[in-house]
Amino acid sequence: MPGLELLDSLRAIVGRDHVDAGDAVREEDTHDEALTAEPVRPAAVVRPHTTEEVSALLAFADSALVPVVARGSGTGLAGGAMPVANGIVVCFDRMNRILEIDEQNHVAVVQPGLTLRELDDALAPRGFLYPVYPGEMSASLGGNVATNAGGMRAVRYGVTRHNVLGVELVLPGGQVLRTGGKFVKSSSGYDLTQLVLGSEGTLALVTEVTLKLVPRLEHNATLLAAFATLESVASAVPRLLGGGVTPLILEYLDTGVMAAIVHESGLELGVPDETRARTAAYLVVVLESSHADRLEQDTEAAAELLAQLGALDVYVLPRTAGMNLIAARERVFFVGKALGADDIVDTVVPRAEIPAFLADTAHLAVEHGAIVSGCGHVGDGNVHLSVFQPDPARRHDLLESLFRSARDHGGAVSGEHGIGTEKQSYWLALEDPAKIALMRRIKAAFDPNGILGPGRLLDAPVAAAGRVAAAAGAGEQQ
Amino acid sequence: MPGLELLDSLRAIVGRDHVDAGDAVREEDTHDEALTAEPVRPAAVVRPHTTEEVSALLAFADSALVPVVARGSGTGLAGGAMPVANGIVVCFDRMNRILEIDEQNHVAVVQPGLTLRELDDALAPRGFLYPVYPGEMSASLGGNVATNAGGMRAVRYGVTRHNVLGVELVLPGGQVLRTGGKFVKSSSGYDLTQLVLGSEGTLALVTEVTLKLVPRLEHNATLLAAFATLESVASAVPRLLGGGVTPLILEYLDTGVMAAIVHESGLELGVPDETRARTAAYLVVVLESSHADRLEQDTEAAAELLAQLGALDVYVLPRTAGMNLIAARERVFFVGKALGADDIVDTVVPRAEIPAFLADTAHLAVEHGAIVSGCGHVGDGNVHLSVFQPDPARRHDLLESLFRSARDHGGAVSGEHGIGTEKQSYWLALEDPAKIALMRRIKAAFDPNGILGPGRLLDAPVAAAGRVAAAAGAGEQQ
Repeated sequence: MPGLELLDSLRAIVGRDHVDAGDAVREEDTHDEALTAEPVRPAAVVRPHTTEEVSALLAFADSALVPVVARGSGTGLAGGAMPVANGIVVCFDRMNRILEIDEQNHVAVVQPGLTLRELDDALAPRGFLYPVYPGEMSASLGGNVATNAGGMRAVRYGVTRHNVLGVELVLPGGQVLRTGGKFVKSSSGYDLTQLVLGSEGTLALVTEVTLKLVPRLEHNATLLAAFATLESVASAVPRLLGGGVTPLILEYLDTGVMAAIVHESGLELGVPDETRARTAAYLVVVLESSHADRLEQDTEAAAELLAQLGALDVYVLPRTAGMNLIAARERVFFVGKALGADDIVDTVVPRAEIPAFLADTAHLAVEHGAIVSGCGHVGDGNVHLSVFQPDPARRHDLLESLFRSARDHGGAVSGEHGIGTEKQSYWLALEDPAKIALMRRIKAAFDPNGILGPGRLLDAPVAAAGRVAAAAGAGEQQ
Repeated sequence: MPGLELLDSLRAIVGRDHVDAGDAVREEDTHDEALTAEPVRPAAVVRPHTTEEVSALLAFADSALVPVVARGSGTGLAGGAMPVANGIVVCFDRMNRILEIDEQNHVAVVQPGLTLRELDDALAPRGFLYPVYPGEMSASLGGNVATNAGGMRAVRYGVTRHNVLGVELVLPGGQVLRTGGKFVKSSSGYDLTQLVLGSEGTLALVTEVTLKLVPRLEHNATLLAAFATLESVASAVPRLLGGGVTPLILEYLDTGVMAAIVHESGLELGVPDETRARTAAYLVVVLESSHADRLEQDTEAAAELLAQLGALDVYVLPRTAGMNLIAARERVFFVGKALGADDIVDTVVPRAEIPAFLADTAHLAVEHGAIVSGCGHVGDGNVHLSVFQPDPARRHDLLESLFRSARDHGGAVSGEHGIGTEKQSYWLALEDPAKIALMRRIKAAFDPNGILGPGRLLDAPVAAAGRVAAAAGAGEQQ
């Protein structure tokens, strides 16, 4: 039971109706979408409505040493929004307004609880696009900022980091700062916007986000190419990108993933059995253009190029089939989950290293008695794997080996999901200790008492976080 | 005279031939291109050849508390490479190799002393481009990283921040870290690459840079549009950018700047006297494409659109004239300098605020008895002004007012030149003290003894930096 004084303090800040504790905590607020995390009931869930309330919450939490976890929509895949038992969850679902759509500067200013779907619905009629599509439109912009979310369109438009121009943030202690602005460039001190992006709620709470918008292009076409080897997919990619046309989407899918999503969605792609039998991997290329005639030319040129580059066959999908294939690909996490995947990996390597990394992956899967199937943003080197191995110890060994392989191929643990609570042990074991130490000093520059995001990213796992836990208890007794 | 022990220590690290002191310090190493800074002779200039030497230099400097200033080619405009009298300058001109051009991953790995010209000469035959063109091809990549250099092509390709994927850096004390890699996305801890970018040599010394390359497009065309008011230029820009074609270059020039560069370069642009008399500002649009026919279509469409949007006249320049105009625009700093400009400003505002900011500028110029003329990257809101007012006190008042206006219009002091020693007083006076305090804590996380970049960016001006100066003296006596 949380201390009554804690609850009273929180209620005084956000109002009685916006603090949940005990049995009133909603089940959905006890976890995110990470496959490996057990739900945790926090001391309280609070739902602020204004920056001032967030500031008051962080002033209180910092002085009482109460751990704080930020929560957007809870669609994260690495445990970044996992509560801690002695802490509070600050849930942003009541701070979900679009504050401004500035058509002159091509900018939107939004609150962190806004979802991608809500934003897109507002932008579409005006001809604008916020181009980051991590594949889950119920995700919040605040969560996207926390994890530096990516997705399939990153090959053309970049990830969250490349599309956020500024934030309003609240530091532990309650100080409110504004970084960046409605401009794409500045050389006026350290880039605090970029530092907070991807920091998984461990440096500050973000209460407002300034987003870059792009024109929405009308025309797109989807190509599906079947390849006999993954090496031939990987070697086709630089040639395709070198021609001056940047695809909107450039994905590979192994045959396991393709079979699963085709089955799940009832897709009919028209690939003959004979080709299918010889295929090891598919490449999906989506092109877009403001001009229908250019799109047609580019599609034809890309199809020819793919054939020259060794594709067994290349299909220009009818518009609906193309859209359905992309939609099915976006559900791949849920397909994997439904099939019983025990964990997922979203490691990133230099894109030319994908075949070597996946060759390692195949060996390691056999060695650890696991099934590993995957797809990925092949233009970015971002490989998504579903891992089927129910034994936690064997799975842990396998993942550690996979991440070590990615690192040895010049990559990093996570391309877009983040480290959170669930990939922390791997990341801390593999990353240069001098970098971890530097990041911890940076963390202390923002959050000297260590109240934000305990047990995730570079903070020690919660079981060992006695200092904050004990101190928080002491705070309640004051 | 620097202590002999200091020189002996430096010579032991980089070799006798690579330490200059006293009269042997080259004149060019005593300043950068900032108009307002007086040359300073440092205690020594050292020219390391390897990362190991840089590491040894920073280990020595940190323990002896010797101030360290990094220097690339010295083309900076804000005093970022200005020496301090009791410190050393680490000059990177011997670390100027291309370590790798990786055509599969579209990446180049280079040392910081490499110039943009040298890089471009190596990339051109391979069909690649490193797209950041700050307008001075003798600038070094290391200097570009330090200032987060921009330039005319940023509207299409972004600034240095958007094109650097990773760095090798050396911390005070000598620790060597590697950040990022040959990939465009990662969500694996704080983004140290982005933090070091634009930090003006105050956090770490960068010894290697991994750059993103893009395909070099063959075809380009230059449009020149004359407008009767700056408001009409500014309101044309979002319409032009909203059409789905991103220009390579999008510049405005006021009539003063246009007259100066036309005169200096002997350009003949074919603008009739009658049009010229009615013109308040010119818009220069460069389009590029991989397809000649598309370029022609786009050029025609842009010309029509500009006419609809109120241009007095629109000229499609012959290829040579277009290239000459851009080359002349790139020399605008030197033209201003030759005409006797007393200072320059490169402030950034939301692009829709440019007319209001420039209206303020015109009032402020009159009020302070100054001539202020300008041009800028109108797609990015980055306004470049030459300021003619020889009296330092009046000029300081004027610049402070200009920067305050920029801030009040939602902008920042510098868009791409940086703060250095020369814009420091303005920036510190206008920036939120809570942000400065946070940046100082971040600085301390990297450089606890404050040896890097004394007197610039957020470090107290050198006159007041008694601690380091005194301590450095003490270090020499050991």
